[in-house]
Amino acid sequence: MKTLITNGTVVSATGRVVADVLIDGERIQALLAPGSQLLGSELSASVDRVIDAAGKYVIPGGIDAHTHMQMPFGGTEASDTFETGTRAAAWGGTTTIIDFAVQKHGERVMDALAAWHDKAAGVCAVDYAFHQIIGHVTEDSLQALGSLADEGITSYKMFMAYPGVFYSDDAQILRAMQRAADLGLMTMMHAENGPVIDVLAEQLVEAGKTGPYYHGIARAWQAEEEATHRAIMLANLTGAPLYVVHVSAKQAVAQLATARDAGQNVFGETCPQYLYLSLEDQLGAPGFEGAKWVCSTPLRSKHEHHQEHMWRALRTNDVQMVATDHCPFCMSGQKELGVGDFRKIPNGIGSVEHRMDLMYQGVVTGEITLERWVELTSTTPARMFGIYGQKGVIQPGADADVVVYDPNGHTSIGLGKTHHMNMDHSAWEGFEIDGHVDTVISRGRVIVDGDRYLGSAGDGRFVRRGLSQYLV
Amino acid sequence: MKTLITNGTVVSATGRVVADVLIDGERIQALLAPGSQLLGSELSASVDRVIDAAGKYVIPGGIDAHTHMQMPFGGTEASDTFETGTRAAAWGGTTTIIDFAVQKHGERVMDALAAWHDKAAGVCAVDYAFHQIIGHVTEDSLQALGSLADEGITSYKMFMAYPGVFYSDDAQILRAMQRAADLGLMTMMHAENGPVIDVLAEQLVEAGKTGPYYHGIARAWQAEEEATHRAIMLANLTGAPLYVVHVSAKQAVAQLATARDAGQNVFGETCPQYLYLSLEDQLGAPGFEGAKWVCSTPLRSKHEHHQEHMWRALRTNDVQMVATDHCPFCMSGQKELGVGDFRKIPNGIGSVEHRMDLMYQGVVTGEITLERWVELTSTTPARMFGIYGQKGVIQPGADADVVVYDPNGHTSIGLGKTHHMNMDHSAWEGFEIDGHVDTVISRGRVIVDGDRYLGSAGDGRFVRRGLSQYLV
Amino acid sequence: MKTLITNGTVVSATGRVVADVLIDGERIQALLAPGSQLLGSELSASVDRVIDAAGKYVIPGGIDAHTHMQMPFGGTEASDTFETGTRAAAWGGTTTIIDFAVQKHGERVMDALAAWHDKAAGVCAVDYAFHQIIGHVTEDSLQALGSLADEGITSYKMFMAYPGVFYSDDAQILRAMQRAADLGLMTMMHAENGPVIDVLAEQLVEAGKTGPYYHGIARAWQAEEEATHRAIMLANLTGAPLYVVHVSAKQAVAQLATARDAGQNVFGETCPQYLYLSLEDQLGAPGFEGAKWVCSTPLRSKHEHHQEHMWRALRTNDVQMVATDHCPFCMSGQKELGVGDFRKIPNGIGSVEHRMDLMYQGVVTGEITLERWVELTSTTPARMFGIYGQKGVIQPGADADVVVYDPNGHTSIGLGKTHHMNMDHSAWEGFEIDGHVDTVISRGRVIVDGDRYLGSAGDGRFVRRGLSQYLV
Amino acid sequence: MKTLITNGTVVSATGRVVADVLIDGERIQALLAPGSQLLGSELSASVDRVIDAAGKYVIPGGIDAHTHMQMPFGGTEASDTFETGTRAAAWGGTTTIIDFAVQKHGERVMDALAAWHDKAAGVCAVDYAFHQIIGHVTEDSLQALGSLADEGITSYKMFMAYPGVFYSDDAQILRAMQRAADLGLMTMMHAENGPVIDVLAEQLVEAGKTGPYYHGIARAWQAEEEATHRAIMLANLTGAPLYVVHVSAKQAVAQLATARDAGQNVFGETCPQYLYLSLEDQLGAPGFEGAKWVCSTPLRSKHEHHQEHMWRALRTNDVQMVATDHCPFCMSGQKELGVGDFRKIPNGIGSVEHRMDLMYQGVVTGEITLERWVELTSTTPARMFGIYGQKGVIQPGADADVVVYDPNGHTSIGLGKTHHMNMDHSAWEGFEIDGHVDTVISRGRVIVDGDRYLGSAGDGRFVRRGLSQYLV
Repeated sequence: MKTLITNGTVVSATGRVVADVLIDGERIQALLAPGSQLLGSELSASVDRVIDAAGKYVIPGGIDAHTHMQMPFGGTEASDTFETGTRAAAWGGTTTIIDFAVQKHGERVMDALAAWHDKAAGVCAVDYAFHQIIGHVTEDSLQALGSLADEGITSYKMFMAYPGVFYSDDAQILRAMQRAADLGLMTMMHAENGPVIDVLAEQLVEAGKTGPYYHGIARAWQAEEEATHRAIMLANLTGAPLYVVHVSAKQAVAQLATARDAGQNVFGETCPQYLYLSLEDQLGAPGFEGAKWVCSTPLRSKHEHHQEHMWRALRTNDVQMVATDHCPFCMSGQKELGVGDFRKIPNGIGSVEHRMDLMYQGVVTGEITLERWVELTSTTPARMFGIYGQKGVIQPGADADVVVYDPNGHTSIGLGKTHHMNMDHSAWEGFEIDGHVDTVISRGRVIVDGDRYLGSAGDGRFVRRGLSQYLV
Repeated sequence: MKTLITNGTVVSATGRVVADVLIDGERIQALLAPGSQLLGSELSASVDRVIDAAGKYVIPGGIDAHTHMQMPFGGTEASDTFETGTRAAAWGGTTTIIDFAVQKHGERVMDALAAWHDKAAGVCAVDYAFHQIIGHVTEDSLQALGSLADEGITSYKMFMAYPGVFYSDDAQILRAMQRAADLGLMTMMHAENGPVIDVLAEQLVEAGKTGPYYHGIARAWQAEEEATHRAIMLANLTGAPLYVVHVSAKQAVAQLATARDAGQNVFGETCPQYLYLSLEDQLGAPGFEGAKWVCSTPLRSKHEHHQEHMWRALRTNDVQMVATDHCPFCMSGQKELGVGDFRKIPNGIGSVEHRMDLMYQGVVTGEITLERWVELTSTTPARMFGIYGQKGVIQPGADADVVVYDPNGHTSIGLGKTHHMNMDHSAWEGFEIDGHVDTVISRGRVIVDGDRYLGSAGDGRFVRRGLSQYLV
Repeated sequence: MKTLITNGTVVSATGRVVADVLIDGERIQALLAPGSQLLGSELSASVDRVIDAAGKYVIPGGIDAHTHMQMPFGGTEASDTFETGTRAAAWGGTTTIIDFAVQKHGERVMDALAAWHDKAAGVCAVDYAFHQIIGHVTEDSLQALGSLADEGITSYKMFMAYPGVFYSDDAQILRAMQRAADLGLMTMMHAENGPVIDVLAEQLVEAGKTGPYYHGIARAWQAEEEATHRAIMLANLTGAPLYVVHVSAKQAVAQLATARDAGQNVFGETCPQYLYLSLEDQLGAPGFEGAKWVCSTPLRSKHEHHQEHMWRALRTNDVQMVATDHCPFCMSGQKELGVGDFRKIPNGIGSVEHRMDLMYQGVVTGEITLERWVELTSTTPARMFGIYGQKGVIQPGADADVVVYDPNGHTSIGLGKTHHMNMDHSAWEGFEIDGHVDTVISRGRVIVDGDRYLGSAGDGRFVRRGLSQYLV
Repeated sequence: MKTLITNGTVVSATGRVVADVLIDGERIQALLAPGSQLLGSELSASVDRVIDAAGKYVIPGGIDAHTHMQMPFGGTEASDTFETGTRAAAWGGTTTIIDFAVQKHGERVMDALAAWHDKAAGVCAVDYAFHQIIGHVTEDSLQALGSLADEGITSYKMFMAYPGVFYSDDAQILRAMQRAADLGLMTMMHAENGPVIDVLAEQLVEAGKTGPYYHGIARAWQAEEEATHRAIMLANLTGAPLYVVHVSAKQAVAQLATARDAGQNVFGETCPQYLYLSLEDQLGAPGFEGAKWVCSTPLRSKHEHHQEHMWRALRTNDVQMVATDHCPFCMSGQKELGVGDFRKIPNGIGSVEHRMDLMYQGVVTGEITLERWVELTSTTPARMFGIYGQKGVIQPGADADVVVYDPNGHTSIGLGKTHHMNMDHSAWEGFEIDGHVDTVISRGRVIVDGDRYLGSAGDGRFVRRGLSQYLV
């Protein structure tokens, strides 16, 4: 099966070129000057399918490096299964997700990983990989880090928040980072000072401040800035590369920038919600409405201009990636658990379907360049997490994960519209995008073609990852 | 004429892949998976020439964005003509230079540009472009900035040093930057406080401190740091993008980093001499020997660790590019003019031939990655100065400027060795490189093949440049 | 003549104490515990006058280190003579001014100084000292710096603004600073990039933007920040202590803070107008009204929060002093010169009478402590400019310059109220102060007693100053 | 009993003046111009004692705000009792100490305080006050903070180090700071990340690195920098003033400077050992010798120039005070406990006797000014901890705690020399000081007169302190 995408503008992290892309089976075979005569003949005549991409962007499929499909949390479970979630991803032009296998307290890491493999195997719409959450640092967990690399899991996440659940103390983090430094693994960090937040949250609830808005107040920027700095220093002490997830506070960005200027391998990820949404407008919505946007780190105050600073950080490469932290919960039966106590609202926003569109809108509004869009959503995620070459780039030999994006199309986001995630609401209801995901190809197969879904459960395969290709 | 480079490791700014590169005439026609069957046949059978690059790096030809061929300076003229200089560049794997047309005081800009076109036309070994030096800001010069863009000259340089020669005062710089901001031109700046340096130099000479070493003392880091900051502020005030040439002081890097973190379009270039050489070891050589390394900005003190900081800045992207500031002068009859008064030593070092090798050695020693090598020496120069797509990348449609670099080869630098520059000494005598430029292809033609030079004067053409593709 | 001030709260830079102050002739003879029995007797019985200061603050007389009495500027002359200006100062609790002798282009420094001595001699209400303005750096001027110290003039000011008038270029500044460093003199700097400002101002006027508001636009914060940094670097290069006058931009403060953290002897002065007034509210007043507040550096935008930052800098000691830059001009016949062209509005605001009150209001509102009030307005000025011990402190042997300030009093500022300056308007019209200057003693003599003025022209004497006592 | 100190140079934080100091009973009654005629008579004739201080400095008695007399630690007890330790302090010109009452885990705060009162009552040579160590944050402890203020204890210390002993976690610190902010108390912090240090120490010992030198390696600067930043952020979140004890790392200083520039009430204390001693020269002494200098925070590397940075921080006021952290242990029977395992070496250095001399030597060598010496060792300690007016200044009404210091004297430090501390070695053996404590007066009584000790146990009284007078 050969496919030729013709005359599209192929966009990479460094530039764009009008070129044809030849796909043979699951791989990209060649990039060619449009209309190339090879061996005296037109190539298009010899392929099975020709996709005309004239006037459109041809980009490597999106890589969402932070999702939580059917993750158990707060007494419930994220509402997207690997099946529904990856299908929604596909609709939105994301052809790879990196989800988190979860080791909880008392569990063995390798058992947890096996359980996650079971959940995902045979049901995913697009390719998937895993990070490993280390929720309990034990001698066994530290040993397991070595096995993980052998299994193609080259990054693991720890939490400075959620005492009693996933929380690791500094001594545990130190030990894990020491081992990660030896192994070359990437340490991912949820950087919020959980013990501090829990005190503040308890005090707010005791004071009768129980609504969703106070979730944002309890999780003060100082708690994020502090933990970010602490993680950086522990990484400095151990030599471990560090990747801070879901950065939302401008002060945390400043800490990252300082460390990076000093030459440390420290990286930051943000999410669309920290670019577009705010404490006041969303978390502060009337009644319990704000619960839709309860996630951690929280939405930040627009009066403090965190959102503008975050866009700037994307431009200056002080924040290197955009993922979603996709962790959907329905209002009914899930978010509702927190009526009367914001601490019980399951934390999470569902965005896996909309990331490519939402970030493209940043191109339209001039926040980022077209090349930066591709870099933030695909190329850097691939390099950061060791799958570049196979993913994240359109080049010979790479998996044929390709999206044809139409800058003259339009996308309306919302429940009755593009929404395919398993949620009873949309955190992005009403957002309008001046572009459209036209065609999505996953390993050579067209799985989205305009408004038709052509894929099926189980198309996606597990991707073994190598060490980070982004270190300096 | 078709050429196929097979099985090489094609390196880009973001990664590497083993692929074949098909060249048709002057352009790259395709990148292909090695051994691709196209239309049922082996491509290699249909091309005129096959270059086996197995085990070697295939990189876009080097772009040296800062050279001064036969430049008049200090009563003499840089010793490389466009012919000798570009040929030396070719030997060293550089397939494009961007030289500086010089408007002196009292001259009209467009006349100066015409003169430089005359010098270069028909004699260059590789492609060349021009920046324009504005040595005299007048109403006419400001008008000319608009014409320059039409002529494919999208960047111009001003000097905060050399009062009475090229110096522009702040009012002049402001006016030029205002116009450049309107036009989208890149302002390049020689950022040293010339009036201050001239006082210090005069005082040193009056005190009998006349040797080459005192060139470095007179041009104190404060003079560079100050001018760098001033240029940044003028750029901030006008909105003009700024590119600071030949950054050598760590304190100047800090100013660039601060501005970049704040989101300003400010960029820095350094040169191999600021990475490898020092005030003490070279400028401070016995007798008049140090004259070989008299250049401005000067070599900096190793005791203050500027060199280490500069390598770090290359890693952190606080400095974005490496050019040579190639401006060769012979000791005999040229550098000698400054015996007894360092102020009369013509300023300049010749490195155009060695840049790719010297920077590759940074890969060998672990200072930078292989990808960063390509980015610093080719991809970013192309993007920065508006020729990316045509140059700086191996992709369909690009000029077939390609270098095959052998990581298992070896290069000894020095007068009787690789040296092809028109100089009676080498500033890099004795440097050993653990790699080798094997093959150099310029617009589809092999001009260097091992130890044979196959090109001829006039192969190189003038390259019209667009606006910078590197702005955020 | 002996005076005893009893039971007042004597305030110093470090604390406060209820104590009696005994004045003998022109000097303070003793500080004593209230009601001290000395030699068995009550001291109060033996003095000529007892001032009951119970419930009031007893502070060292204010020192205004930046005034311009009858200064020629912009084709006119500041409207306060040394007689009227120092009398207004006295009314406001300021018992020492440091004015500026002005060397203009083409003049000899020592001649200029002599002329200023002539102006001030025999007419001042309070003591006065001089800084020297160096408006033309020549060999003679540099020589004169040495003579100045012998004359009790240990500081001199240069201008980075006003090309063609007072402007010194960087080479001149360097030479002067080198000499000042040798002599131990304090270099004072008007830090604004004049050449840049003049271009911007010209462009605004050409664009028909001629009103007072545009004075503030032309003098952009970048011009102040840049010059501040440049002055710091020149000081760094030469080792000269640096004092930046009338700092108004928060970005300039940041430059001072950075240099100070690095251990450099760099200091900043601000003025009440930069704490209370703004570009929008005052310079942007309707019609030509804004001319009242045309001064340089200009009032800054309240939207950028410069005023809050400046108060903070006073607390953190990143700005060390508050002076007035008193340079009054009447609207009629003076400010009016600039109708239709803001560049012709004489630059200056009159505040010498109100500084102590305006700063005390900062104590009332909690911006600064009581001790900091005294430090900013008297103790540090004395130390900074080499008269501490004689002035700036209440201790035995010091000149008896003492103010009794009533925190329960009230002061309404404005033309028909406290105003004694020779101006036809007040820049501070309508300001209300929750405190009052009750008694002013100058070298032992009560010159202000409630609402009576008891002094006379010529009371004030020239004060010879030593080197700065504030250097680290 | 009246004493007159004549003709000395009275030094304050802001300047110096030749003046007479009249002491009446326990208080200073007056400062007078030398040779003052009061009521027609020479005062000297009427006093009981005249001390001629001509050519000498008259300074407020030293205040050592950080001592640990007979403190239980590591299974032993600091070797100086309140009697021996305060007598040694007196010999060295320190007339007030602020020691730490210690609440251990499981104890009630007010009981602990009572126990410390018992230890100190009736035996001290000089006045003493207490800070309270909170080693166990409970509801009762938080309540006790309110009682402490009533008892004249307005500051308390927490530990981020020593898990299982004094350690408080972030939640506990937050709660304490919240309460302290309400009460106006000063929070003192031992800012080292204890959990991290304990892991590193364990790993070193396991690797056979058991000597004193490794104490310094285990307590890496990152652990101090990190905890300092964390404490600052918690203070920022709560509004509590923060005082970081025994700062030794330059990176921690940088954190303090940043916070201070931002206007936060954050202060730092350093100790003589961090100015004069180093990891290499002292901790790295041959054999077990280095144990003499085992203290926490540890001595830092001289190659990283922490010592120079610390002197600079004293000049720039980024560190505000010098205390000793006096916590002496004998080698024999105490330090020896750690042979074979540096973790078991009792932490502490004895310096209470030498602080004034050691800091005066900084005046001699030009590191600090004479005024800054007084400020760092007496005036700021008094202001910081709420006893200024009574202590820390020579002014009417203040306690007559006065030291006559002879700049022409000499002091040799060491066991057989000035040493009066209860230790079998001196951490300062061989230090030579170009000055000498001649006379020490405590509340009007001469307790040291040249080489005679005239005081007796129990002279010293408990000093109740008010809230800090140093906040901005």
